[in-house]
Order: sequence, then structure tokens, then C-alpha cells
Amino acid sequence: MSDFEINILGCGSALPTVKHYPTSQVVALREKMFMVDCGEGAQLQFRRQKLKFSRLNHIFISHLHGDHCFGLPGIISTLALLGRTGELVVHAHPDIEKIFGPILSYCSRDMPFQLRFNSLTPSVSEIIYEDRSMRVRTIPLRHRIPTCGFLFEEKPKSRHLIRDIVEFYKIPLKDRAQIRDGADYTTPEGKIIPNNILTREADKSYRYAYCSDTIYTEKIIPLIEGVDVLYHESTFANDNLLRAKETFHSTAIQAAEIARKANVGRLILGHYSARYLDNTIFLEEAISVFPNTILAQEGLVVPVSGK
Amino acid sequence: MSDFEINILGCGSALPTVKHYPTSQVVALREKMFMVDCGEGAQLQFRRQKLKFSRLNHIFISHLHGDHCFGLPGIISTLALLGRTGELVVHAHPDIEKIFGPILSYCSRDMPFQLRFNSLTPSVSEIIYEDRSMRVRTIPLRHRIPTCGFLFEEKPKSRHLIRDIVEFYKIPLKDRAQIRDGADYTTPEGKIIPNNILTREADKSYRYAYCSDTIYTEKIIPLIEGVDVLYHESTFANDNLLRAKETFHSTAIQAAEIARKANVGRLILGHYSARYLDNTIFLEEAISVFPNTILAQEGLVVPVSGK
Repeated sequence: MSDFEINILGCGSALPTVKHYPTSQVVALREKMFMVDCGEGAQLQFRRQKLKFSRLNHIFISHLHGDHCFGLPGIISTLALLGRTGELVVHAHPDIEKIFGPILSYCSRDMPFQLRFNSLTPSVSEIIYEDRSMRVRTIPLRHRIPTCGFLFEEKPKSRHLIRDIVEFYKIPLKDRAQIRDGADYTTPEGKIIPNNILTREADKSYRYAYCSDTIYTEKIIPLIEGVDVLYHESTFANDNLLRAKETFHSTAIQAAEIARKANVGRLILGHYSARYLDNTIFLEEAISVFPNTILAQEGLVVPVSGK
Repeated sequence: MSDFEINILGCGSALPTVKHYPTSQVVALREKMFMVDCGEGAQLQFRRQKLKFSRLNHIFISHLHGDHCFGLPGIISTLALLGRTGELVVHAHPDIEKIFGPILSYCSRDMPFQLRFNSLTPSVSEIIYEDRSMRVRTIPLRHRIPTCGFLFEEKPKSRHLIRDIVEFYKIPLKDRAQIRDGADYTTPEGKIIPNNILTREADKSYRYAYCSDTIYTEKIIPLIEGVDVLYHESTFANDNLLRAKETFHSTAIQAAEIARKANVGRLILGHYSARYLDNTIFLEEAISVFPNTILAQEGLVVPVSGK
């Protein structure tokens, strides 16, 4: 099991199909869970994948089309019924309060936890969440309404102490945290031991970019350059190139072009239009441009970190 | 296939489980479909059961707890995307407009059909829908918030003309509809032929009663007396009799008591609490009181009419 992974709860688009739920994912980084979009049925899929509601403290909504947010009242009510305490933060366009406020205040009158909306400005890239190990940044996208993707980046990790050397110099415990962060060590005799003698390279910090819904736009490339995993919508195959443009969506080939140009590690496709009964066409088209592509499907868990 | 049947889309209660969707059913009478309650995921189940969105013109909401109505924005948006025209009527407590108005007007700005809310007064039994062949009447229930069930009753059907007799008297076509409705026939010579010579008994008219959510209340019995099929919630088994009372829900045995006292044809249990991993206990307890009981489950189709 990777300690940074993506759980696909739903990867269909607006019309329901017998195969797909509307969009929702859970990004799990060690003990923390972040939900990205919350289409209808997200809480059912969340439970089905045996994820823990208690670990979910942040929900990120890319835009206010129903297939990305109609699951919110359900999951929020469930958290209330489960007696959750503390705070739940929903990061979304400010209109979210206007549209979900009445339903939430009516149906969850005695909410035992604090529900907080964090207003996003989807047109600019900004850091919207940060903790000790992770940072979430918005990725402005181009869709019919204000929309942004999300970049989940692990912060640089501590270097590893080389135990034998640390013991040889009898370095006190209190000094070791600084050394892990890159500091040199000065012995009581005043001799400076450079950090690279005392430590090994830190583990790699991984990055995941989520981009749905959007028309093909190369403007996102600088923001997602080199990420380990990119989820990019591919609502249509190449047979509907024009329709993709008209509806501000992408094709599988366009998603693969972005992946190739941004030099990402792996591409996940999703947000399939209901018109495609078999999604293999998306994979076939994408791998001709970017071979390391997989198809999202409900229940799939994709590792972001390398283990 | 029966021409009057119930399709169970969901029969769980408020907390999601891996086995059940929240409450929703479709009552189908020949070419017409009526949705009863619309929990989250109802539209997905609707599609999964290969029902036709175009035949759905009325949605009846028993009460405004989320597990009975959070699927509304999704199905309404889908109908809009499918380019539906005409009118969709949602029969519900008047507060529904307050809570769903903002989300619907935001997410379905250009709705190609007319969405009309028909306000119910759940505390009194009244006819809220009527067409040529069917009548829907509310059944006041006792729950924590205003709640009503629904009684679907076929109207009395026409009697069958006895072809040989009708031809013997050379009864003109224009007079036959009246005779089917019970009129006698007067020959050109002035002789009166009584209706029971000309016709056979009409087919039986069937009735289905839906009662969820409610505490045990015998007040509903006169309204559901003798129905062919009764759906009665059984959120709890007998081990949680007290909890049932506290939360204004029923046990399986209480549902069966109602079925027995109302002398119904068949009882369907549903709205199972998430605490029961296996629902067999509901059936075991209920059949000790009312043998002709079945457990609702997603995908089940229950005939109401006798064929």
C-alpha cells in the first residue's frame, strides 16, 4: 500500500449510467483524507471502499455543476448522524453557500460539528490548504462556469540521519531535528561537520494534479509540470472533438497531449460521457500519445508515491 | 409482468451501507411511472433498473429528511439534460421549495420543462393526484417531522361486454361505453335489458399503500384497510423496540401488526437501519405475525395486480 494514493469513487459525467457514478475521489496521504468533488452517491462509494468518515476533514469542489457537488448534502448529513465533532471545511466557489445553505440548515439542524466554507477564486492559482506535510494549490481551468483543479503536493521531507555517523559524533537528540532539516553540526570542540556527511537524501515528495472539467488548455502545464500522477478529464473520444470544444471539455488525446507536454509520470483518464458504452476507446486513443495512461474506474486505487 | 407494480430503487435508511440505497421506489401502472421518495442515488438506480425517464411525471416525497429527498437535484438535472419537455410535478411538504429552490435554479438554469411543486398538508388525508385510471391519496403518518404516506388506488374499471349478447341485441357502438360503466340498455322497441345480462364483472381494481417513515400508529388502518400490497417501514427489529419509539420509527413486528390488523394482501418491509448487517431478522420476526411478508431489496419488482 502506498502512503499517498487516490481512490476513485466516481468517474462518470453528468448523465447517470449503469457503470459509473458522477465524479468524486478521495486523496489519502497517510492518515488524512481529502475528498475531491462530491457527485451524487459519493458517500455510498466512500463507505463501499471502506474508507473512514472520521478521517475526512476537507472537501474540495472544482465547480458547481451538479455531477461534481450533488453528493454534498448526503455526506454532510451522514457525518452529522455519525456524531462527528470538530470542523469540516468545504473549499469551493463562494456561490456554494447560496445553493447548499438552505438544504443544509434545514436537513442538518443540529450539526455536532462546524461546517466551514472556504471560498475559492478559481481564476487564480493559490494555496488553499496547508499542513505539516501537504499543500493544496488551485489550478485554474477553462470550463463553462468558474472551475479549478487541485494540485496536492507533499512538502519536502526531512533528510535521513546516518545513524553510525550521528553516534560517532555523539550528537545530542535536541540537535537532530535541525540536522534532518539540512543544518550542519558543530561539535563541542567547534569543528563543523557538514550536513551531507551526517544525512542521506530525503525521500522524494510526490505530487498529484486533478484537472476536471476543462477544455484543452496548455496554460495549466507550468502548474502541473512533472507531477507524479495527473487526473485529466476526457469526456469525449476523438469522434466528438467538436462537441468537446463546444461544451468546454477535453478528448482523451487532448488529455494525453497535456500529460506528454507536462512530462507527468502517469495519466488517469475519467469523466467519461454517458454516450460511450465501452471506455476502451479512451485508452486506445490516449496511449498513442502518452503510453503511461490508465482508465479511472469506480473502486480503483492509484498509488501516487512510489511504493 | 404485472401492469401495476413496484420497483424498489432503495430501501435503506439514513446512514449509507454497502448493501442499501436510501429510500426510493417507482410505482408503475401500465405506461405511467410515479416515483415515491427520492433518496441519494435514486436516478442511478432508476437507470440501472432500465426504467424510462420519459415516463416519469410525478414524484411524491413523504417527508423532508435527506434520505428521502437528496436525490431530487440529480434526477431533475438529468431530466433537464435529456431535454425533457412538459411538466414534472413534485408533491411534497411546502418547505421543499425553500430548501431545493436555490440549488435547482442555480444548477438547472435553462430547464426545458416546467417543474411544479404541489404542496401537501401531511396531517390530513387528501387526494393529491388523479387521472383516468388512478388516484393518489395521502396517509398521515407520525414521524419527527411532518410526514405522509401515499395510497395508490386504481379507479373502478369498466365491466366487460358479453360479445354474444351485445351482438344479439345489435347494440350500437355509441351506447357501449355507458353499458361498460354499468348502464342498462333500452332496445328500439323500448325493452330494457339489464346490465348484468349484457356484461361481466369488471376486473378488480388494485391498491398499494406506502408508509414510511412512521412510529407504530393504528390510525392509518382505516386508510389502508384491505390494500393488495402494503410497504411499511421497519427500521428496527424487536431488539430496538425502545429506540424505534424514541426515533418515531417502527419495528418489523409492528409493521406486521399493522398489516394483520388492516388485513392487507402482502407486506413489504424496508427502511432498514444500518446497524443490521443481515436483514433476515426482520423477516423472521414479521412472519410470526403476518406470514405474507417479503423484504424489500434494491432491484426487486413487486406486482400489485394479480397477474
